[in-house]
Amino acid sequence: MRNRQVRLARRPHGAVREDDFSVVDAPMPAPGPDEVLIECLWLSLDPYQRMRMNDAPSYAPSVAVGEVMVGETVGRVIESRSPRLAPGDHVAGPTGWQCFAAMPARRLRTVDPGLAPLPAHLGVLGMPAVTAWVGLTHMAVPTAGETVVVSAASGAVGSVAGQIARLRGCRVIGIAGGATKCAHVVDDLGFDACLDYKLPGLARRVATAAPQGVHIYFDNVGGPVLDAVLATLAPFARIALCGQVSQYQTDVPYPLQNLRSLLVNRVRVQGFIVSDHMPLWPQALAELTGWFHAGQLSHRESVADGIDSAPRAFIAMLAGDKVGKQVVRLALQ
Amino acid sequence: MRNRQVRLARRPHGAVREDDFSVVDAPMPAPGPDEVLIECLWLSLDPYQRMRMNDAPSYAPSVAVGEVMVGETVGRVIESRSPRLAPGDHVAGPTGWQCFAAMPARRLRTVDPGLAPLPAHLGVLGMPAVTAWVGLTHMAVPTAGETVVVSAASGAVGSVAGQIARLRGCRVIGIAGGATKCAHVVDDLGFDACLDYKLPGLARRVATAAPQGVHIYFDNVGGPVLDAVLATLAPFARIALCGQVSQYQTDVPYPLQNLRSLLVNRVRVQGFIVSDHMPLWPQALAELTGWFHAGQLSHRESVADGIDSAPRAFIAMLAGDKVGKQVVRLALQ
Repeated sequence: MRNRQVRLARRPHGAVREDDFSVVDAPMPAPGPDEVLIECLWLSLDPYQRMRMNDAPSYAPSVAVGEVMVGETVGRVIESRSPRLAPGDHVAGPTGWQCFAAMPARRLRTVDPGLAPLPAHLGVLGMPAVTAWVGLTHMAVPTAGETVVVSAASGAVGSVAGQIARLRGCRVIGIAGGATKCAHVVDDLGFDACLDYKLPGLARRVATAAPQGVHIYFDNVGGPVLDAVLATLAPFARIALCGQVSQYQTDVPYPLQNLRSLLVNRVRVQGFIVSDHMPLWPQALAELTGWFHAGQLSHRESVADGIDSAPRAFIAMLAGDKVGKQVVRLALQ
Repeated sequence: MRNRQVRLARRPHGAVREDDFSVVDAPMPAPGPDEVLIECLWLSLDPYQRMRMNDAPSYAPSVAVGEVMVGETVGRVIESRSPRLAPGDHVAGPTGWQCFAAMPARRLRTVDPGLAPLPAHLGVLGMPAVTAWVGLTHMAVPTAGETVVVSAASGAVGSVAGQIARLRGCRVIGIAGGATKCAHVVDDLGFDACLDYKLPGLARRVATAAPQGVHIYFDNVGGPVLDAVLATLAPFARIALCGQVSQYQTDVPYPLQNLRSLLVNRVRVQGFIVSDHMPLWPQALAELTGWFHAGQLSHRESVADGIDSAPRAFIAMLAGDKVGKQVVRLALQ
């Protein structure tokens, strides 16, 4: 048996291309002491992985050329050298884009396949949902009645951020690309409105949709969408700066025109990374699971089949071609 | 007796010119019930006043064309219709750029001329110092040992912000324009270093001066200086966004290249205006007065003579031609 992997073949310049990756068969890994061998079943594709392909300094090391791409999977323990985990246990962890991985048991979290379908543990009950929860409840701190804007509203993080804001009694305006996504955001996710950033006049439309001003902006994209929302911030607004996906594939950052709004409106901007907030995960997952079981948290996955399709699915996700959480099915269960 | 005033003659486009103002003799004002008549002795010139000359929405209304320019003075009560104040009392308040003003007594604060020379109540013991105190201690929240960068370091707010940071045990790097100002910042104000932003390679020099990264940036200027500091922020840095003076006289905001640092370093940016924090003033002034009397707070004023010189002094201050707190002596005392 061989271990199929996706590796970084070279650093992309601008938009990622399929030949920036290589798909190879590697020897099966062997678990060391306190490690387990995992069969990876579902791979999570997330925008932050694009940043890790660059050489620029970031909060985490870059993926080296030739290394396995960084990413989280849900899988099944097939061999254990740790008392913490037994064969058959389901786990989630940072295995990278591959079909098998040997990892220390302490770096994995157990997931309950009875609680929700496995890929949900990578989305609506996984890292993206905890990111949304931390950003909204601990960075932005909403009050009922406030107006919340969420960009990339149909994505894995944005879809949950907006739903949490609704559950907290806020009025929620999504921003997404295209009529299909916008309809999903309103009809399935229950946002109060959704604006298509691909149509002209976004700043004007944000102002119309938020006549009291925007109290909270949960930003996943940066760039011109951020600029449009800056123009309509309410006094004392908060921006949870979660991602800047529009800026990950360019060497020339978008020149924001409306930063002055941060001073004029006495705004708080808080950049954050969910992995800085590990102590909040149990509380976040407990609350998310409660909503999930009560039917208060809609979710959708875009599924690609087989690890060889991961590069193409990743490129499509970055281009905004997919709705919901992008996952790759690695093996039949 | 007539009341000499400086009024806004027209809205400036780009850099302010002297003929954007008109200096006129108006009738003496008469105090109404609960008001006092003040002879204004010293006028405070501050960068925020430039913003109020524009028509753009801001945290406070614009000055209308034909109106007296907005600004604070220290003066003496010469007639009182309020039980709060008596003739001879010294007060500070938002009288505007004029030699006499009638105002409600409740809008004025009493100042003690025995505590410090009168113009100090417009600077090192006035609004700019309270701004520095609120921004540093309540927005940025320094810890001893951290590296703090302050822009416009020789100015009324920056000079105090840096000195407070030193008193709190931080290492403080100023940024100012020209060798004279930089020498003043280090030799007289006691900063650990000062960088001249007019010389090339500011970003590299900030990085060299802050080998552990910048933990706190107290920003008065925005634009390219902000961009240079963004490149060297430490993880979990805080930016107290106090002013953006480099951007007040332009219609084309500077295109920042390094905003990505806010996300990568999980930075908190907090825009603030001192007038939102009136309950903190007594505590701030008490602490500032204590330092002042202990000789721990250096200050310098640039003095212009006579109200007719206010427009020219204001233009020079915005151009960065002056060191310290810019005041105008309105009358002999």
